[in-house]
Amino acid sequence: MALLEHVVDVSFGDCDPAGIVFYPNYFRWMDATFHRLLQERVGGHARLCRDLEAVGIGLMDVGMNFRMPVRDGQRVLLRLMGIDWGSRSLTLRYDAEKDGQTVFTGYEKRGIFVMQGGCITAAAVEPLKVMIVAKAS
Amino acid sequence: MALLEHVVDVSFGDCDPAGIVFYPNYFRWMDATFHRLLQERVGGHARLCRDLEAVGIGLMDVGMNFRMPVRDGQRVLLRLMGIDWGSRSLTLRYDAEKDGQTVFTGYEKRGIFVMQGGCITAAAVEPLKVMIVAKAS
Amino acid sequence: MALLEHVVDVSFGDCDPAGIVFYPNYFRWMDATFHRLLQERVGGHARLCRDLEAVGIGLMDVGMNFRMPVRDGQRVLLRLMGIDWGSRSLTLRYDAEKDGQTVFTGYEKRGIFVMQGGCITAAAVEPLKVMIVAKAS
Amino acid sequence: MALLEHVVDVSFGDCDPAGIVFYPNYFRWMDATFHRLLQERVGGHARLCRDLEAVGIGLMDVGMNFRMPVRDGQRVLLRLMGIDWGSRSLTLRYDAEKDGQTVFTGYEKRGIFVMQGGCITAAAVEPLKVMIVAKAS
Repeated sequence: MALLEHVVDVSFGDCDPAGIVFYPNYFRWMDATFHRLLQERVGGHARLCRDLEAVGIGLMDVGMNFRMPVRDGQRVLLRLMGIDWGSRSLTLRYDAEKDGQTVFTGYEKRGIFVMQGGCITAAAVEPLKVMIVAKAS
Repeated sequence: MALLEHVVDVSFGDCDPAGIVFYPNYFRWMDATFHRLLQERVGGHARLCRDLEAVGIGLMDVGMNFRMPVRDGQRVLLRLMGIDWGSRSLTLRYDAEKDGQTVFTGYEKRGIFVMQGGCITAAAVEPLKVMIVAKAS
Repeated sequence: MALLEHVVDVSFGDCDPAGIVFYPNYFRWMDATFHRLLQERVGGHARLCRDLEAVGIGLMDVGMNFRMPVRDGQRVLLRLMGIDWGSRSLTLRYDAEKDGQTVFTGYEKRGIFVMQGGCITAAAVEPLKVMIVAKAS
Repeated sequence: MALLEHVVDVSFGDCDPAGIVFYPNYFRWMDATFHRLLQERVGGHARLCRDLEAVGIGLMDVGMNFRMPVRDGQRVLLRLMGIDWGSRSLTLRYDAEKDGQTVFTGYEKRGIFVMQGGCITAAAVEPLKVMIVAKAS
């Protein structure tokens, strides 16, 4: 079962001259799914940064595997399938489907970045885990 | 009464370093509202171009007036308020609101572009008007 | 003579299924031209906001008139043609050309927004005018 | 030595509320670097598709590893570092740097997609390899 589902209605302007979704848009939608999670569980990115004294919840590594193209007027269902918690990073696993067929699978490895002695460094993610897991139960 | 309503949930990535929606995104959403109209009334842009032997339904002139900023996590309701039909152009009038307050008003003046003697020219919009008005009644 | 010129090499992903630039991208490039002006004359948006104690240099009204389509691989020259200074707004006038032909003309009416008694309001633009005009001479 | 270099001047609107580049934009720039290669070596995507009777040169898999954030007004140098040729796919390896420091490393695995018996399938990439390698020597 997905932790979160996010419906995207693909529009003409999301597509390229080949008539299919320009792939960086899939990352926009994957990121938007994560930020919807933050809205629902911790009150959004801005509030989370205040609560954790962080400068941002940024990306360390991402990847995506494409299975089928999508076009103007089609509906895609993005799903956050799970979160793997490390000590100083979390990895979010996504997939997307159209009419029951997989469009892509992807992941985002993120860190909670804080200022420490003038440098940006990745903090422990345990406080975020507590917030997200607590809210889910 | 709006001809069409289009809900947009603003995400973190739609916003700029000032924390508010980066304004070109409003045009993406206004354009998406128009393309939803095409989906609902004429089967989408690709089919319309085949039916009218057109190369595209492109822009001639656009404008937007901004009333208030919008942020991550807020919901905006875009509305297509009306269409003014010219002979070789149509002008679509939009507004957008958040919690009952106007976010922006805008318009798109569009033409149906066809190839004629090696040149691109704006065709009569009457056939599109018939399709859109017929489907609405 | 233009106040500033900004070259854009149009890429595949900037274009829509009709094979031409998706029009919100023109606003991204117009905005980028303005921000290049800020970089060159006042040290960028972030520094300007600190200097003027502003929350942002935001949009009040924009418009664009389209003359010809542009495609993947073509080069567009955006030009900031002039600035009309009001008391609490400035209007930037742009055009863009390809091979000597006009692609679009456009304008951005912007304000300097400050917090005043808990509300966002448009401040006098005279301080910005001084900085920009001084640096130009 | 890079096969191709592509300079990007980061603008305000490329950045998110944390003030750093919104990561899907890095994929737009990586894709633009590939399309510049097509422009220089094979006359662009549209011509390549005509020459190879293909529907598109699409994505199979992508990935990116982020090393440092980039902000408004900073310049990034994207480099296409190499191409690994498979039989029915090619993998492009990129990196990006700012002031001599690595911003990201990434890759795009792409196929040449053709219609065959009503289905889209990945064709042999040998013809593209010949064009690209021939033009480079």
